[in-house]
Amino acid sequence: MPDDAFIRGPVPMTKREIRILALAALKLQPGQIIWDVGAGTGSLSVEAALSVPAGQVFAVERNGAAVALLQQNKEHFALENMVIVPGEAPEVLAGLPDPQRIIIGGSGGKLAEILHCCQERLTAGGIIVINVVTIENLSLALKFLNHRPFVEREGLYMQTARLEQLGSQDFFRAQNGVWILSARKEG
Amino acid sequence: MPDDAFIRGPVPMTKREIRILALAALKLQPGQIIWDVGAGTGSLSVEAALSVPAGQVFAVERNGAAVALLQQNKEHFALENMVIVPGEAPEVLAGLPDPQRIIIGGSGGKLAEILHCCQERLTAGGIIVINVVTIENLSLALKFLNHRPFVEREGLYMQTARLEQLGSQDFFRAQNGVWILSARKEG
Amino acid sequence: MPDDAFIRGPVPMTKREIRILALAALKLQPGQIIWDVGAGTGSLSVEAALSVPAGQVFAVERNGAAVALLQQNKEHFALENMVIVPGEAPEVLAGLPDPQRIIIGGSGGKLAEILHCCQERLTAGGIIVINVVTIENLSLALKFLNHRPFVEREGLYMQTARLEQLGSQDFFRAQNGVWILSARKEG
Amino acid sequence: MPDDAFIRGPVPMTKREIRILALAALKLQPGQIIWDVGAGTGSLSVEAALSVPAGQVFAVERNGAAVALLQQNKEHFALENMVIVPGEAPEVLAGLPDPQRIIIGGSGGKLAEILHCCQERLTAGGIIVINVVTIENLSLALKFLNHRPFVEREGLYMQTARLEQLGSQDFFRAQNGVWILSARKEG
Repeated sequence: MPDDAFIRGPVPMTKREIRILALAALKLQPGQIIWDVGAGTGSLSVEAALSVPAGQVFAVERNGAAVALLQQNKEHFALENMVIVPGEAPEVLAGLPDPQRIIIGGSGGKLAEILHCCQERLTAGGIIVINVVTIENLSLALKFLNHRPFVEREGLYMQTARLEQLGSQDFFRAQNGVWILSARKEG
Repeated sequence: MPDDAFIRGPVPMTKREIRILALAALKLQPGQIIWDVGAGTGSLSVEAALSVPAGQVFAVERNGAAVALLQQNKEHFALENMVIVPGEAPEVLAGLPDPQRIIIGGSGGKLAEILHCCQERLTAGGIIVINVVTIENLSLALKFLNHRPFVEREGLYMQTARLEQLGSQDFFRAQNGVWILSARKEG
Repeated sequence: MPDDAFIRGPVPMTKREIRILALAALKLQPGQIIWDVGAGTGSLSVEAALSVPAGQVFAVERNGAAVALLQQNKEHFALENMVIVPGEAPEVLAGLPDPQRIIIGGSGGKLAEILHCCQERLTAGGIIVINVVTIENLSLALKFLNHRPFVEREGLYMQTARLEQLGSQDFFRAQNGVWILSARKEG
Repeated sequence: MPDDAFIRGPVPMTKREIRILALAALKLQPGQIIWDVGAGTGSLSVEAALSVPAGQVFAVERNGAAVALLQQNKEHFALENMVIVPGEAPEVLAGLPDPQRIIIGGSGGKLAEILHCCQERLTAGGIIVINVVTIENLSLALKFLNHRPFVEREGLYMQTARLEQLGSQDFFRAQNGVWILSARKEG
């Protein structure tokens, strides 16, 4: 889905190419329960909810403006299987059912606590995908996914640039790099 | 699908992340006819054929070793809707039905001729996606997609790196950059 | 020299790392005549003039605001061996002495004409360095430097990102990619 | 200096563009004492020794094959002001005079210990430059340079690609990304 299919505000949105690759790394299956932690505008939640109609996506977000956009996007795409969970992670995760899939797109400086919770709650065989842009979060997530119960750790760095016109010439404008990390919980 | 799901030989294969994004750019619909020009090992053809079971994918390839791998991958995935077309493009394209979707992954130094043919044969409203790695092909394809009958030209440059262990440390090994270009034929 | 050593206006300035590598590719020798075509704010001209005190740098620029900044930077660094040449290239190049070194940082859509002139005027054994950011200029310059009288064509693509703080975390903000091309004139 | 100016063996060498930018970040002054920790083939030591003829460069290296190459490059460039220090850092650093400049190109898994030593021994106002390629070292060095006595922390990520011919076409082959970090010791 193109970026402009979503209702957007001043809240940063996961770029289309990152969204597509993060979703591919999730390997969604019918009927799964998915947590989208730091859901932002909900572009990942929406695509996940559309991909898994019989499943349920919990979009967790602490920022009020983003929660409003989540609500608008949920309605815009008429998604009954997308549940908006306003509040701070990891605290609000306590009230959610155990997920088979987790995607972490934002962590508000609490990535360690969130990962600790996710490690406990992710079902055996489940998959976690983490998008990071800071070196602290990259370092932390790499270490976390590098030991049991996590296995099959993978990581991709993506530096992209998008075609624009510069006068009458073609130019590729750089976008900030993102690391997409993933692993499976053993069992 | 991971890269190692495919039977591979010495023939270069489109990397997983490029494959996923090129497929997303194709916006496949049920029942479509798809040309995969310069199909290589067929990883893109296979994923397209799996995505559009009622459609038909024509995998065009001139290299004998690659054609053999195409055949093996077609059998491995039991794809009746994937047709292998050995031979040189654009010549062999003459015998194929008009496509709603075209992906060009290789052009053997004949990109201009191939694009000219594709422009004629692509059905109105159809989408073309071109992956390029050389500056000559990039320049040529950008110019070609920048005028009618093509509209909605888009381009993404992707420079990726994959997580590896370097001793006991984490390291991201650079992969060569690829440009993914796309456009729609008007009408 | 850091970027903020220069007097800057709204005119785009060659980034420090590009400047350093372009200067290294120039391999300046004492007493040389250097053309800096599309000099912009003059950051490259200033560093070249400082490196070659007994030489002479001709900073060619058509944009009035940039010419004013060139003048300010020339005075700021008290450079008697930096000559500001206002006007449009290649026309204004006719009045300059033949150079041993040429750097092209901007071409105002006239790269082909400028390269044609440079090819004639560069002294035998001289070196030309071209920084490009658009695909048209990249393609054109690569072709131009790929035949006689040019030899020893080299090219470097640089995609950089600079450290910033994002909240309390470390983040590398992407800068647009630049190609630095160079060649020597035979003889 | 081009990469092939140096005598090279199977030991990895700092690429030319990294070398140039790391040297620029060092801001060498006449007569300085410089440590090059993890000197490898010595390409950085050689260029530093050539830049600061009245200074002294201590090239520290634990790998025997690299030490032999260091010796060959020292002789090849006839550098009397380049001192080869075989052995393991930080231990061997104890015998060296306090430096005004430090560059760390390799750390053999002991970056923390080396940085701790460098922090003590670097003279007030001195500059340290660190090239890293792993996430562990990047994370560690960023933290280390982010507090006193270090000030003016800077960081650059460089992803480069070099021009090659692919058949008759132009292609830029990706090189692995490197982070160049630097800071000044206060005082």
